[in-house]
Amino acid sequence: MTILNDKKMGSMIPKFIFIGYIFLCYLENVNGGVTSTFIRSEWPSVDIPLDNEVFVKPKGPNAPEQVHITQGDYDGKGMIIIWVTPDEPGSNQVKYGTSEKKYDFTAKGETVKNYTFYNYTSGYIHQCHLENLEYDTKYYYEIGEGDSARSFWFQTPPKIDPNASYKFGIIGDLGQTYNSLSTLEHYIESGAQTVLHVGDLSYADRYKYHDMGVRWDSYGRFVEKIAAYQPWIWTTGNHEIEYMPYMNEVTPFKQYLYRYPTPYSACKSSNPLWYAIRRASAHIIVLSSYSPFVKYTPQWEWLQDEFKKVDRKQTPWLIVIMHTPIYNSNSAHYMEGESMRVAFESWFVQYKVDVVFAGHVHAYERSYRISNIHYNITSGVSYPVPDKSAPVYITVGDGGNQEGLASRFNDPQPEYSAFREASYGHSTLEIMNKTHASYHWNRNDDGKKVATDSFVLHNQYW
Amino acid sequence: MTILNDKKMGSMIPKFIFIGYIFLCYLENVNGGVTSTFIRSEWPSVDIPLDNEVFVKPKGPNAPEQVHITQGDYDGKGMIIIWVTPDEPGSNQVKYGTSEKKYDFTAKGETVKNYTFYNYTSGYIHQCHLENLEYDTKYYYEIGEGDSARSFWFQTPPKIDPNASYKFGIIGDLGQTYNSLSTLEHYIESGAQTVLHVGDLSYADRYKYHDMGVRWDSYGRFVEKIAAYQPWIWTTGNHEIEYMPYMNEVTPFKQYLYRYPTPYSACKSSNPLWYAIRRASAHIIVLSSYSPFVKYTPQWEWLQDEFKKVDRKQTPWLIVIMHTPIYNSNSAHYMEGESMRVAFESWFVQYKVDVVFAGHVHAYERSYRISNIHYNITSGVSYPVPDKSAPVYITVGDGGNQEGLASRFNDPQPEYSAFREASYGHSTLEIMNKTHASYHWNRNDDGKKVATDSFVLHNQYW
Repeated sequence: MTILNDKKMGSMIPKFIFIGYIFLCYLENVNGGVTSTFIRSEWPSVDIPLDNEVFVKPKGPNAPEQVHITQGDYDGKGMIIIWVTPDEPGSNQVKYGTSEKKYDFTAKGETVKNYTFYNYTSGYIHQCHLENLEYDTKYYYEIGEGDSARSFWFQTPPKIDPNASYKFGIIGDLGQTYNSLSTLEHYIESGAQTVLHVGDLSYADRYKYHDMGVRWDSYGRFVEKIAAYQPWIWTTGNHEIEYMPYMNEVTPFKQYLYRYPTPYSACKSSNPLWYAIRRASAHIIVLSSYSPFVKYTPQWEWLQDEFKKVDRKQTPWLIVIMHTPIYNSNSAHYMEGESMRVAFESWFVQYKVDVVFAGHVHAYERSYRISNIHYNITSGVSYPVPDKSAPVYITVGDGGNQEGLASRFNDPQPEYSAFREASYGHSTLEIMNKTHASYHWNRNDDGKKVATDSFVLHNQYW
Repeated sequence: MTILNDKKMGSMIPKFIFIGYIFLCYLENVNGGVTSTFIRSEWPSVDIPLDNEVFVKPKGPNAPEQVHITQGDYDGKGMIIIWVTPDEPGSNQVKYGTSEKKYDFTAKGETVKNYTFYNYTSGYIHQCHLENLEYDTKYYYEIGEGDSARSFWFQTPPKIDPNASYKFGIIGDLGQTYNSLSTLEHYIESGAQTVLHVGDLSYADRYKYHDMGVRWDSYGRFVEKIAAYQPWIWTTGNHEIEYMPYMNEVTPFKQYLYRYPTPYSACKSSNPLWYAIRRASAHIIVLSSYSPFVKYTPQWEWLQDEFKKVDRKQTPWLIVIMHTPIYNSNSAHYMEGESMRVAFESWFVQYKVDVVFAGHVHAYERSYRISNIHYNITSGVSYPVPDKSAPVYITVGDGGNQEGLASRFNDPQPEYSAFREASYGHSTLEIMNKTHASYHWNRNDDGKKVATDSFVLHNQYW
């Protein structure tokens, strides 16, 4: 079953190699799908202690911390800067410009909010939108005052153009363990310019009471070394829901929504949890697995409109990100994506989505181009079949959180599954031009020594 | 395929009968399912004009209007009284007692709220909870002051008891047309004691701007003659969502939530849109088709807990109501319930739900006891099969709204469908004791002259 070129690289993967104490085992099932039984647990899958240097607070009174940025508009000329001041609101200004330490512009933050979650009270969360930035330009920015001022920089994307090259990184289910740290350290080496985070950020909900807020703060400091310098496009996962009746905290996504704003209104979404952006040559659609998505709901109505707005002549690459994978052959979370598959899969095929990235399952998996849209109940037959118009589905829930790896895959490997392995890592998608993109999955444990899952993705439109 | 006794009455239905100009056509497919092609459109499927007497405002200055009641607690000893005062807040007291015009008790309303929806401003919506009522007792109540005072009454249910008899009525997709009026008039004759409304109430969202609010008000006056005298258990349908970006009104269920409170907190639900009550010998679970329902969401978590709380020894009858049917063989809304089926069907079977009532499809349909829970993707086979532990699924979306009937059924009638007909009507479920209940679907056009769909429902637990 050869459906796409994506598979070519699969056969290049060395089989049965020992690297030190690592047992690398690839099994090819009858359909050519690859199951790697590579398992490594060098780093304990526990959260890094709060007194570790990765969580260190910046110096200076009321110094801005947990700095993170995300695209602030539809087309990449805006940036939202978010930071937290721990003790008092302080300044809500961002100074910025194209020269280091010489800021020509000042933007005033729109909101400074704090919140309580049970017996935790957050710091002051600032949001500031920088608008009308120049494309393809390095901007320096500074927040905070006096001795507590802190400066960072980011690079704006090239203008919307079908042949604009751009490198996205994909991270999922990150958490704040030593494995998470390893993922971040590998990611920094990747050269990717924007993170697509497919949900489950801090895993603060593994804690109780006051610590749930504290671990959102530590996560904010943990990822700052990347998140302050390049935009992260956030998706919500189940660990963001934080439905906690025992603490009388039952508003879904409460802490997340205070901390991780998105440019949803720019794409006429009515809710920060689902939205779309265009960046370089890509149109990226962010879906919310745990919000209403069936027909007539706002997310469904919005997505119907958003797909119609996609112009592959301008943005050839159509990428969907969500948390719960629609195709997964791990015993963990098996079939949890079925409800959304039923609602959206036919659109993914109709609009020839290039690739769907998801997380949730703590392992890596890639599908062939398949669909399961012909089921109509009375036909009785419901089976994913090869479909050239279908996206490739990639699960990258292997960022490294404290729940550990999902190492039990269904056996035999189903025909729709092309490659799967329970290791920590992240992916990159490097768009070359309107026709080709280079995809790579990085397994944390190998660095660059071992080929992992890589292939050339051919655009579905061009 | 004889799965349950419910089918017996089906064969009693006369075939090919003309009643006046009515062509009554029953087709039996190979599996014994009945498709009636009875179609009648005596009444236009248009909303009754606002100046019609069915919408008349009560006399007196600022007189309470749109009075409706719903169960106010988990076990039926409470009642929520809701009414609207058009001009000013006025009194928020309810006087009540067991003698007519002689009220021994006074309850103070908890909230008086109004809201705006685009350029519409609502009247003042009062909520007052009557608590610790006696079971099986007729209560009289009065709201409003002086010349504007209005009095009503209701009967409390018997105490929770496995053999308590009780008669529920089921109405769906009601609207405010002449057909809706016919449904209400038939319902009044039924002797049912509580309405289970399976969603899509006013169809106000078929209007624009100011009229959307006005048609919620007219609906409130329209149903008062029943809704002020017996509790309606409300379910939300797609017409309650009112996601209207063109009016900048995008908060789902906004008008509904102001007007139709539910006793959700009594059952530890975190949201008025999904909840449960116990009444006489029934445990009734109300689900929200357009709220999040997949694993990890609040509705899913709550339902998991609620099913565990069901005690069939106390409440033998386990009834689920929702808007979008899980089984439907009408071309209208076909398969729209698949996403929720995937999420919840296995619980319905595991907990031996007696019957699931839904609306949405503007026709009547009843299934056999079937399930489709063995599908696991790789098996490829997904087909509803006879299952003695499964509920009967009944669609009663035929209340009579302005969208008209859904008269195109899939052909042939699928094996899971036992009876279907595109006519306006309502159903009743009369619980006799812990083992038997008498079910009847009333077609508006026949009154009592023609047998419609009726059967004896055997309890799934006893």
